[in-house]
Amino acid sequence: MARLNTFFLHPEDWPEYAGNEVSLDKAESRHMLKVLRTAVGTQVRLFDGLGRYGMFRVDKAERNKAQLVAESLFRQDAPSVNLWLALGWSKSSRRGFLLEKAVELGVAGIWFWQADHSQGRLPDAVKETWTDRCIQAAKQCGSVFLPEIMMISGGLSGLQAKCSQFDQTFLAWEKEDFRNLLAPDHFTEGNSLVVIGPEGGFSESEAEQLVRGGMEPVSLGQSILRWETAALYCLSLSFHRRSLREVAS
Amino acid sequence: MARLNTFFLHPEDWPEYAGNEVSLDKAESRHMLKVLRTAVGTQVRLFDGLGRYGMFRVDKAERNKAQLVAESLFRQDAPSVNLWLALGWSKSSRRGFLLEKAVELGVAGIWFWQADHSQGRLPDAVKETWTDRCIQAAKQCGSVFLPEIMMISGGLSGLQAKCSQFDQTFLAWEKEDFRNLLAPDHFTEGNSLVVIGPEGGFSESEAEQLVRGGMEPVSLGQSILRWETAALYCLSLSFHRRSLREVAS
Repeated sequence: MARLNTFFLHPEDWPEYAGNEVSLDKAESRHMLKVLRTAVGTQVRLFDGLGRYGMFRVDKAERNKAQLVAESLFRQDAPSVNLWLALGWSKSSRRGFLLEKAVELGVAGIWFWQADHSQGRLPDAVKETWTDRCIQAAKQCGSVFLPEIMMISGGLSGLQAKCSQFDQTFLAWEKEDFRNLLAPDHFTEGNSLVVIGPEGGFSESEAEQLVRGGMEPVSLGQSILRWETAALYCLSLSFHRRSLREVAS
Repeated sequence: MARLNTFFLHPEDWPEYAGNEVSLDKAESRHMLKVLRTAVGTQVRLFDGLGRYGMFRVDKAERNKAQLVAESLFRQDAPSVNLWLALGWSKSSRRGFLLEKAVELGVAGIWFWQADHSQGRLPDAVKETWTDRCIQAAKQCGSVFLPEIMMISGGLSGLQAKCSQFDQTFLAWEKEDFRNLLAPDHFTEGNSLVVIGPEGGFSESEAEQLVRGGMEPVSLGQSILRWETAALYCLSLSFHRRSLREVAS
Protein backbone atom coordinates (compact mmCIF):
# COMPACT_ATOMS: atom_id res chain seq x y z
CA MET A 1 0.00 0.00 0.00
CA ALA A 2 1.27 3.44 -0.86
CA ARG A 3 1.91 5.67 2.10
CA LEU A 4 -1.14 7.78 2.95
CA ASN A 5 -0.85 11.52 2.55
CA THR A 6 -0.48 13.25 5.90
CA PHE A 7 -1.91 16.57 7.06
CA PHE A 8 -1.62 18.61 10.21
CA LEU A 9 -4.59 19.26 12.51
CA HIS A 10 -4.17 21.73 15.37
CA PRO A 11 -4.18 19.94 18.74
CA GLU A 12 -7.13 22.04 19.99
CA ASP A 13 -9.17 20.69 17.08
CA TRP A 14 -8.28 17.06 17.66
CA PRO A 15 -11.42 14.87 17.92
CA GLU A 16 -12.20 12.78 20.95
CA TYR A 17 -13.83 9.84 19.20
CA ALA A 18 -13.94 8.08 15.88
CA GLY A 19 -16.92 9.36 13.94
CA ASN A 20 -16.26 12.98 14.97
CA GLU A 21 -15.90 15.54 12.23
CA VAL A 22 -12.96 17.93 11.92
CA SER A 23 -11.87 20.73 9.56
CA LEU A 24 -8.35 21.45 8.39
CA ASP A 25 -7.08 25.02 8.55
CA LYS A 26 -6.80 27.08 5.41
CA ALA A 27 -3.20 26.21 4.55
CA GLU A 28 -3.63 22.49 5.03
CA SER A 29 -7.01 22.50 3.26
CA ARG A 30 -5.40 24.23 0.33
CA HIS A 31 -2.56 21.73 0.28
CA MET A 32 -5.01 18.83 0.40
CA LEU A 33 -7.51 20.10 -2.13
CA LYS A 34 -5.60 22.34 -4.51
CA VAL A 35 -2.06 20.99 -4.50
CA LEU A 36 -2.70 17.28 -4.04
CA ARG A 37 -6.24 17.35 -5.51
CA THR A 38 -7.48 14.92 -2.90
CA ALA A 39 -10.99 13.69 -3.69
CA VAL A 40 -13.89 13.32 -1.29
CA GLY A 41 -13.89 9.77 0.04
CA THR A 42 -10.08 9.49 0.14
CA GLN A 43 -8.48 8.19 3.31
CA VAL A 44 -5.68 10.33 4.75
CA ARG A 45 -3.61 10.50 7.90
CA LEU A 46 -3.74 13.45 10.29
CA PHE A 47 -1.42 14.28 13.20
CA ASP A 48 -1.46 16.97 15.85
CA GLY A 49 2.24 17.43 16.59
CA LEU A 50 1.80 16.20 20.18
CA GLY A 51 1.83 12.50 19.40
CA ARG A 52 -1.77 11.99 18.32
CA TYR A 53 -2.52 10.71 14.84
CA GLY A 54 -5.30 8.90 13.06
CA MET A 55 -6.95 7.78 9.88
CA PHE A 56 -9.59 10.12 8.51
CA ARG A 57 -11.79 10.15 5.44
CA VAL A 58 -12.40 13.30 3.41
CA ASP A 59 -16.07 14.11 3.82
CA LYS A 60 -16.58 17.51 2.24
CA ALA A 61 -14.42 19.77 0.13
CA GLU A 62 -15.56 23.36 -0.12
CA ARG A 63 -13.24 25.99 -1.52
CA ASN A 64 -10.52 26.34 1.11
CA LYS A 65 -12.04 24.08 3.70
CA ALA A 66 -11.60 20.35 3.93
CA GLN A 67 -13.84 18.46 6.32
CA LEU A 68 -13.02 14.96 7.41
CA VAL A 69 -14.44 12.21 9.59
CA ALA A 70 -12.20 10.41 12.07
CA GLU A 71 -12.07 6.66 11.46
CA SER A 72 -9.45 5.49 13.91
CA LEU A 73 -7.45 7.44 16.47
CA PHE A 74 -4.08 6.66 18.02
CA ARG A 75 -1.52 8.17 20.34
CA GLN A 76 2.22 7.64 20.32
CA ASP A 77 3.96 7.99 23.66
CA ALA A 78 6.44 10.81 23.87
CA PRO A 79 10.02 9.50 23.72
CA SER A 80 11.56 8.95 27.14
CA VAL A 81 14.79 10.59 26.05
CA ASN A 82 14.76 14.00 24.45
CA LEU A 83 17.10 16.66 23.21
CA TRP A 84 16.51 20.41 23.20
CA LEU A 85 18.88 22.83 21.50
CA ALA A 86 19.32 26.43 22.63
CA LEU A 87 20.87 28.29 19.72
CA GLY A 88 22.41 31.72 19.95
CA TRP A 89 20.43 33.87 17.55
CA SER A 90 22.08 34.21 14.14
CA LYS A 91 20.90 35.79 10.94
CA SER A 92 21.13 32.75 8.80
CA SER A 93 19.77 31.72 5.45
CA ARG A 94 20.14 28.19 6.78
CA ARG A 95 17.58 28.45 9.57
CA GLY A 96 14.76 26.86 7.57
CA PHE A 97 16.99 24.01 6.52
CA LEU A 98 18.08 23.48 10.11
CA LEU A 99 14.50 23.31 11.35
CA GLU A 100 13.64 20.74 8.69
CA LYS A 101 16.61 18.50 9.52
CA ALA A 102 15.99 18.93 13.25
CA VAL A 103 12.47 17.56 12.89
CA GLU A 104 13.73 14.60 10.87
CA LEU A 105 16.32 13.87 13.54
CA GLY A 106 13.70 14.02 16.30
CA VAL A 107 14.53 17.24 18.13
CA ALA A 108 12.22 17.90 21.09
CA GLY A 109 12.71 21.65 21.09
CA ILE A 110 14.64 24.49 19.54
CA TRP A 111 15.10 27.64 21.54
CA PHE A 112 16.67 30.84 20.34
CA TRP A 113 18.41 33.25 22.69
CA GLN A 114 20.14 36.59 22.28
CA ALA A 115 23.90 36.13 22.64
CA ASP A 116 26.68 38.72 22.84
CA HIS A 117 27.80 37.82 19.31
CA SER A 118 24.31 37.51 17.85
CA GLN A 119 23.85 39.40 14.62
CA GLY A 120 20.66 41.37 14.84
CA ARG A 121 17.97 41.30 17.46
CA LEU A 122 16.07 38.20 18.46
CA PRO A 123 12.50 38.44 17.12
CA ASP A 124 9.79 38.63 19.78
CA ALA A 125 7.80 35.73 18.42
CA VAL A 126 8.22 32.51 16.49
CA LYS A 127 7.63 33.14 12.79
CA GLU A 128 4.82 31.27 11.10
CA THR A 129 7.16 30.21 8.31
CA TRP A 130 9.29 28.34 10.85
CA THR A 131 6.33 26.45 12.27
CA ASP A 132 5.18 25.67 8.76
CA ARG A 133 8.61 24.37 7.81
CA CYS A 134 8.47 22.03 10.82
CA ILE A 135 4.99 20.81 9.91
CA GLN A 136 6.05 20.07 6.34
CA ALA A 137 9.14 18.23 7.60
CA ALA A 138 7.07 16.15 10.05
CA LYS A 139 4.63 15.23 7.31
CA GLN A 140 7.44 14.18 5.06
CA CYS A 141 9.29 12.06 7.60
CA GLY A 142 6.23 10.61 9.30
CA SER A 143 6.88 12.09 12.74
CA VAL A 144 3.83 12.77 14.90
CA PHE A 145 5.71 15.23 17.11
CA LEU A 146 6.53 18.84 16.39
CA PRO A 147 9.36 20.55 18.24
CA GLU A 148 8.75 23.24 20.80
CA ILE A 149 10.12 26.40 19.19
CA MET A 150 10.67 29.25 21.61
CA MET A 151 12.23 32.67 21.69
CA ILE A 152 13.93 33.03 25.07
CA SER A 153 13.77 36.58 26.38
CA GLY A 154 16.23 38.00 28.87
CA GLY A 155 19.43 36.93 27.15
CA LEU A 156 21.72 34.49 28.88
CA SER A 157 20.10 34.90 32.28
CA GLY A 158 16.71 34.27 30.74
CA LEU A 159 18.08 31.08 29.27
CA GLN A 160 19.64 29.97 32.54
CA ALA A 161 16.36 30.52 34.36
CA LYS A 162 14.77 27.91 32.13
CA CYS A 163 17.43 25.24 32.56
CA SER A 164 16.18 23.61 35.74
CA GLN A 165 13.68 21.51 33.79
CA PHE A 166 16.49 19.46 32.24
CA ASP A 167 18.20 16.36 33.58
CA GLN A 168 21.45 17.47 31.99
CA THR A 169 22.70 20.59 30.28
CA PHE A 170 25.71 20.90 27.98
CA LEU A 171 27.60 23.80 26.59
CA ALA A 172 29.17 23.24 23.18
CA TRP A 173 32.26 25.25 23.92
CA GLU A 174 34.88 25.66 21.21
CA LYS A 175 37.55 26.53 23.73
CA GLU A 176 36.83 23.70 26.10
CA ASP A 177 39.48 21.02 26.61
CA PHE A 178 39.25 18.95 23.46
CA ARG A 179 39.19 15.72 25.45
CA ASN A 180 35.65 16.05 26.75
CA LEU A 181 33.90 15.10 23.53
CA LEU A 182 30.14 15.10 23.23
CA ALA A 183 29.12 11.51 22.46
CA PRO A 184 25.92 9.51 21.86
CA ASP A 185 26.14 8.20 25.43
CA HIS A 186 25.55 11.68 26.79
CA PHE A 187 21.97 11.23 25.62
CA THR A 188 21.19 7.96 27.35
CA GLU A 189 18.56 9.24 29.76
CA GLY A 190 16.00 11.94 30.36
CA ASN A 191 15.81 15.40 28.91
CA SER A 192 18.98 17.09 27.72
CA LEU A 193 19.77 20.59 26.58
CA VAL A 194 22.74 21.55 24.44
CA VAL A 195 23.49 25.27 24.29
CA ILE A 196 25.22 26.37 21.10
CA GLY A 197 26.62 29.83 20.54
CA PRO A 198 25.62 32.04 17.63
CA GLU A 199 27.66 32.19 14.43
CA GLY A 200 30.85 33.71 15.88
CA GLY A 201 30.65 31.71 19.10
CA PHE A 202 30.11 32.47 22.77
CA SER A 203 31.77 35.43 24.40
CA GLU A 204 34.18 34.53 27.20
CA SER A 205 31.82 35.84 29.85
CA GLU A 206 28.86 33.91 28.47
CA ALA A 207 30.75 30.64 28.52
CA GLU A 208 32.03 31.33 32.04
CA GLN A 209 28.57 32.21 33.31
CA LEU A 210 27.07 29.01 31.87
CA VAL A 211 29.79 26.82 33.34
CA ARG A 212 29.51 28.52 36.73
CA GLY A 213 25.76 27.88 36.46
CA GLY A 214 26.45 24.15 36.28
CA MET A 215 26.54 23.35 32.57
CA GLU A 216 28.96 20.70 31.42
CA PRO A 217 31.28 22.07 28.75
CA VAL A 218 31.74 19.64 25.89
CA SER A 219 33.66 19.73 22.64
CA LEU A 220 32.18 18.80 19.28
CA GLY A 221 35.63 18.04 17.82
CA GLN A 222 38.57 19.89 16.35
CA SER A 223 36.94 21.44 13.31
CA ILE A 224 35.20 24.77 13.27
CA LEU A 225 31.57 23.89 12.64
CA ARG A 226 29.04 26.46 11.63
CA TRP A 227 26.13 27.23 13.89
CA GLU A 228 23.68 24.96 12.11
CA THR A 229 26.22 22.20 11.44
CA ALA A 230 26.99 22.04 15.15
CA ALA A 231 23.26 21.70 15.79
CA LEU A 232 22.83 18.92 13.22
CA TYR A 233 25.86 17.12 14.60
CA CYS A 234 24.44 17.08 18.16
CA LEU A 235 21.11 15.89 16.82
CA SER A 236 22.77 13.10 14.84
CA LEU A 237 24.52 11.79 17.95
CA SER A 238 21.29 11.86 19.91
CA PHE A 239 19.37 10.25 17.02
CA HIS A 240 21.92 7.46 16.95
CA ARG A 241 21.61 6.89 20.70
CA ARG A 242 17.84 6.77 20.40
CA SER A 243 18.05 4.27 17.55
CA LEU A 244 20.28 2.03 19.66
CA ARG A 245 17.70 2.12 22.43
CA GLU A 246 14.90 1.24 20.02
CA VAL A 247 16.88 -1.69 18.70
CA ALA A 248 17.46 -2.96 22.23
CA SER A 249 13.81 -2.69 23.23
CA MET B 1 45.69 37.28 16.61
CA ALA B 2 42.64 37.31 14.37
CA ARG B 3 42.34 34.38 12.04
CA LEU B 4 44.02 35.04 8.69
CA ASN B 5 41.82 35.19 5.63
CA THR B 6 42.14 32.07 3.54
CA PHE B 7 42.12 31.68 -0.24
CA PHE B 8 42.25 28.75 -2.60
CA LEU B 9 45.19 28.16 -4.94
CA HIS B 10 44.90 25.40 -7.57
CA PRO B 11 47.21 22.48 -6.76
CA GLU B 12 49.00 22.76 -10.13
CA ASP B 13 49.98 26.33 -9.20
CA TRP B 14 51.28 25.43 -5.75
CA PRO B 15 54.84 26.76 -5.25
CA GLU B 16 57.74 24.51 -4.43
CA TYR B 17 59.66 26.87 -2.18
CA ALA B 18 59.17 29.84 0.07
CA GLY B 19 60.02 32.95 -1.92
CA ASN B 20 58.20 31.70 -5.03
CA GLU B 21 55.51 33.88 -6.51
CA VAL B 22 51.97 32.72 -7.26
CA SER B 23 48.78 34.21 -8.71
CA LEU B 24 45.26 33.55 -7.58
CA ASP B 25 42.63 32.75 -10.19
CA LYS B 26 40.06 35.34 -11.18
CA ALA B 27 37.37 34.38 -8.69
CA GLU B 28 39.72 34.22 -5.71
CA SER B 29 41.53 37.39 -6.79
CA ARG B 30 38.21 39.16 -6.97
CA HIS B 31 37.24 37.88 -3.53
CA MET B 32 40.54 38.99 -2.06
CA LEU B 33 40.77 42.39 -3.70
CA LYS B 34 37.21 43.53 -4.32
CA VAL B 35 35.17 41.84 -1.63
CA LEU B 36 37.64 41.79 1.25
CA ARG B 37 39.68 44.79 -0.02
CA THR B 38 42.92 43.13 1.01
CA ALA B 39 45.86 45.53 0.76
CA VAL B 40 49.29 44.82 -0.71
CA GLY B 41 51.55 43.71 2.11
CA THR B 42 48.84 41.79 3.96
CA GLN B 43 49.59 38.26 5.11
CA VAL B 44 47.04 35.60 4.11
CA ARG B 45 46.72 31.85 4.16
CA LEU B 46 46.40 29.77 0.98
CA PHE B 47 45.46 26.10 0.62
CA ASP B 48 45.33 23.76 -2.35
CA GLY B 49 42.60 21.31 -1.30
CA LEU B 50 45.06 18.41 -1.21
CA GLY B 51 46.50 19.13 2.21
CA ARG B 52 49.04 21.82 1.35
CA TYR B 53 48.75 25.25 2.91
CA GLY B 54 50.98 28.16 3.69
CA MET B 55 51.43 31.78 4.66
CA PHE B 56 51.73 34.19 1.79
CA ARG B 57 52.08 37.94 1.48
CA VAL B 58 50.16 39.97 -1.08
CA ASP B 59 52.74 41.37 -3.47
CA LYS B 60 50.81 42.95 -6.34
CA ALA B 61 47.17 43.72 -6.91
CA GLU B 62 46.20 44.46 -10.49
CA ARG B 63 42.56 44.50 -11.47
CA ASN B 64 41.42 40.90 -11.17
CA LYS B 65 44.79 39.40 -10.43
CA ALA B 66 46.35 39.02 -7.02
CA GLN B 67 50.01 38.04 -6.86
CA LEU B 68 51.55 36.73 -3.68
CA VAL B 69 54.90 35.54 -2.39
CA ALA B 70 55.11 32.33 -0.39
CA GLU B 71 56.54 32.86 3.08
CA SER B 72 56.18 29.45 4.70
CA LEU B 73 54.79 26.23 3.27
CA PHE B 74 53.26 23.25 5.07
CA ARG B 75 51.56 19.99 4.34
CA GLN B 76 48.94 18.22 6.42
CA ASP B 77 48.86 14.43 6.11
CA ALA B 78 45.69 13.01 4.67
CA PRO B 79 43.54 11.42 7.39
CA SER B 80 44.10 7.69 7.76
CA VAL B 81 40.36 7.07 7.97
CA ASN B 82 38.07 8.44 5.32
CA LEU B 83 34.45 8.37 4.26
CA TRP B 84 33.10 8.61 0.75
CA LEU B 85 29.39 8.91 0.02
CA ALA B 86 27.80 7.66 -3.19
CA LEU B 87 24.47 9.43 -3.50
CA GLY B 88 21.73 8.45 -5.90
CA TRP B 89 21.17 11.47 -8.11
CA SER B 90 18.28 13.65 -6.92
CA LYS B 91 17.05 16.99 -8.10
CA SER B 92 17.44 18.82 -4.86
CA SER B 93 17.53 22.40 -3.80
CA ARG B 94 19.52 21.13 -0.84
CA ARG B 95 22.55 19.91 -2.80
CA GLY B 96 24.61 23.05 -2.18
CA PHE B 97 23.84 22.93 1.50
CA LEU B 98 24.80 19.27 1.64
CA LEU B 99 28.15 19.93 -0.03
CA GLU B 100 28.90 22.70 2.44
CA LYS B 101 28.08 20.56 5.50
CA ALA B 102 29.95 17.59 4.03
CA VAL B 103 33.14 19.64 3.79
CA GLU B 104 32.74 20.85 7.38
CA LEU B 105 32.28 17.26 8.54
CA GLY B 106 35.39 16.11 6.67
CA VAL B 107 33.97 14.04 3.80
CA ALA B 108 36.68 12.56 1.57
CA GLY B 109 34.49 12.28 -1.50
CA ILE B 110 30.99 12.65 -2.82
CA TRP B 111 29.97 10.63 -5.82
CA PHE B 112 26.70 10.89 -7.68
CA TRP B 113 25.21 7.95 -9.56
CA GLN B 114 22.10 7.42 -11.66
CA ALA B 115 19.60 5.31 -9.72
CA ASP B 116 16.31 3.76 -10.83
CA HIS B 117 14.39 6.31 -8.78
CA SER B 118 16.57 9.28 -9.68
CA GLN B 119 14.64 12.31 -10.80
CA GLY B 120 16.20 13.63 -13.96
CA ARG B 121 19.42 12.64 -15.65
CA LEU B 122 22.80 12.71 -13.96
CA PRO B 123 24.82 15.61 -15.41
CA ASP B 124 27.93 14.59 -17.32
CA ALA B 125 30.27 16.78 -15.35
CA VAL B 126 30.69 18.32 -11.93
CA LYS B 127 29.26 21.83 -11.91
CA GLU B 128 31.60 24.68 -11.11
CA THR B 129 29.12 26.02 -8.55
CA TRP B 130 29.48 22.80 -6.55
CA THR B 131 33.26 23.00 -6.49
CA ASP B 132 33.03 26.64 -5.53
CA ARG B 133 30.63 25.84 -2.71
CA CYS B 134 33.14 23.31 -1.37
CA ILE B 135 36.01 25.81 -1.62
CA GLN B 136 34.02 28.43 0.28
CA ALA B 137 33.10 25.87 2.94
CA ALA B 138 36.73 24.74 3.33
CA LYS B 139 37.88 28.34 3.69
CA GLN B 140 35.25 28.96 6.31
CA CYS B 141 35.97 25.88 8.41
CA GLY B 142 39.73 25.89 7.99
CA SER B 143 39.99 22.54 6.20
CA VAL B 144 42.91 22.11 3.82
CA PHE B 145 41.24 19.22 2.00
CA LEU B 146 38.56 19.41 -0.64
CA PRO B 147 36.36 16.40 -1.35
CA GLU B 148 36.62 14.42 -4.54
CA ILE B 149 33.35 15.12 -6.34
CA MET B 150 32.59 12.69 -9.15
CA MET B 151 29.79 11.81 -11.49
CA ILE B 152 29.76 8.03 -11.83
CA SER B 153 28.72 6.91 -15.28
CA GLY B 154 27.22 3.52 -16.04
CA GLY B 155 24.55 3.50 -13.33
CA LEU B 156 24.74 0.92 -10.59
CA SER B 157 27.24 -1.29 -12.42
CA GLY B 158 29.47 1.71 -12.98
CA LEU B 159 29.33 2.39 -9.27
CA GLN B 160 30.08 -1.23 -8.35
CA ALA B 161 33.09 -1.24 -10.65
CA LYS B 162 34.61 1.53 -8.56
CA CYS B 163 34.06 -0.09 -5.16
CA SER B 164 37.16 -2.25 -4.99
CA GLN B 165 39.24 0.68 -3.79
CA PHE B 166 37.44 0.71 -0.43
CA ASP B 167 38.20 -1.24 2.71
CA GLN B 168 34.51 -1.43 3.49
CA THR B 169 31.31 -0.58 1.68
CA PHE B 170 27.90 -0.03 3.22
CA LEU B 171 24.46 0.23 1.79
CA ALA B 172 22.05 2.47 3.72
CA TRP B 173 19.04 0.28 3.09
CA GLU B 174 15.70 1.38 4.49
CA LYS B 175 14.36 -2.13 4.30
CA GLU B 176 17.29 -3.77 6.00
CA ASP B 177 16.74 -5.40 9.37
CA PHE B 178 16.59 -2.44 11.68
CA ARG B 179 19.00 -4.16 14.06
CA ASN B 180 22.12 -3.66 12.00
CA LEU B 181 22.54 0.02 12.81
CA LEU B 182 25.29 2.08 11.25
CA ALA B 183 27.48 3.30 14.12
CA PRO B 184 30.61 5.40 14.63
CA ASP B 185 32.62 2.20 15.08
CA HIS B 186 31.96 1.23 11.47
CA PHE B 187 34.41 3.99 10.59
CA THR B 188 37.32 2.90 12.74
CA GLU B 189 39.74 2.04 9.95
CA GLY B 190 40.66 2.69 6.35
CA ASN B 191 38.50 4.02 3.56
CA SER B 192 34.75 3.52 3.71
CA LEU B 193 31.97 4.07 1.24
CA VAL B 194 28.32 4.49 2.15
CA VAL B 195 25.89 4.22 -0.74
CA ILE B 196 22.67 6.16 -0.26
CA GLY B 197 19.68 5.93 -2.58
CA PRO B 198 18.12 8.92 -4.27
CA GLU B 199 15.11 10.73 -2.82
CA GLY B 200 12.57 7.90 -3.09
CA GLY B 201 15.07 5.19 -2.16
CA PHE B 202 16.68 2.23 -3.88
CA SER B 203 14.69 -0.04 -6.12
CA GLU B 204 14.49 -3.64 -4.92
CA SER B 205 16.79 -4.84 -7.67
CA GLU B 206 19.40 -2.18 -6.94
CA ALA B 207 19.55 -3.09 -3.27
CA GLU B 208 19.76 -6.80 -4.11
CA GLN B 209 22.52 -6.25 -6.65
CA LEU B 210 24.58 -4.22 -4.18
CA VAL B 211 24.19 -6.78 -1.41
CA ARG B 212 25.05 -9.63 -3.78
CA GLY B 213 28.11 -7.59 -4.77
CA GLY B 214 29.30 -7.70 -1.17
CA MET B 215 28.03 -4.50 0.39
CA GLU B 216 26.98 -4.60 4.01
CA PRO B 217 23.40 -3.41 4.41
CA VAL B 218 22.99 -1.09 7.37
CA SER B 219 20.10 0.82 8.84
CA LEU B 220 20.23 4.49 9.78
CA GLY B 221 17.34 4.10 12.23
CA GLN B 222 13.60 3.92 12.20
CA SER B 223 12.79 7.36 10.82
CA ILE B 224 12.49 8.19 7.17
CA LEU B 225 15.40 10.52 6.53
CA ARG B 226 15.66 12.60 3.42
CA TRP B 227 18.46 12.00 0.98
CA GLU B 228 20.67 14.78 2.32
CA THR B 229 19.77 14.18 5.97
CA ALA B 230 20.87 10.56 5.61
CA ALA B 231 24.15 11.81 4.16
CA LEU B 232 24.71 14.30 6.99
CA TYR B 233 23.86 11.67 9.56
CA CYS B 234 26.49 9.23 8.20
CA LEU B 235 29.03 12.05 8.09
CA SER B 236 28.27 13.01 11.69
CA LEU B 237 28.91 9.46 12.91
CA SER B 238 32.18 9.31 11.02
CA PHE B 239 33.18 12.78 12.25
CA HIS B 240 32.55 11.66 15.81
CA ARG B 241 34.67 8.54 15.33
CA ARG B 242 37.47 10.63 13.89
CA SER B 243 37.30 13.06 16.81
CA LEU B 244 37.59 10.15 19.24
CA ARG B 245 40.72 8.99 17.45
CA GLU B 246 42.24 12.46 17.54
CA VAL B 247 41.59 12.69 21.25
CA ALA B 248 43.27 9.35 21.84
CA SER B 249 46.37 10.17 19.80
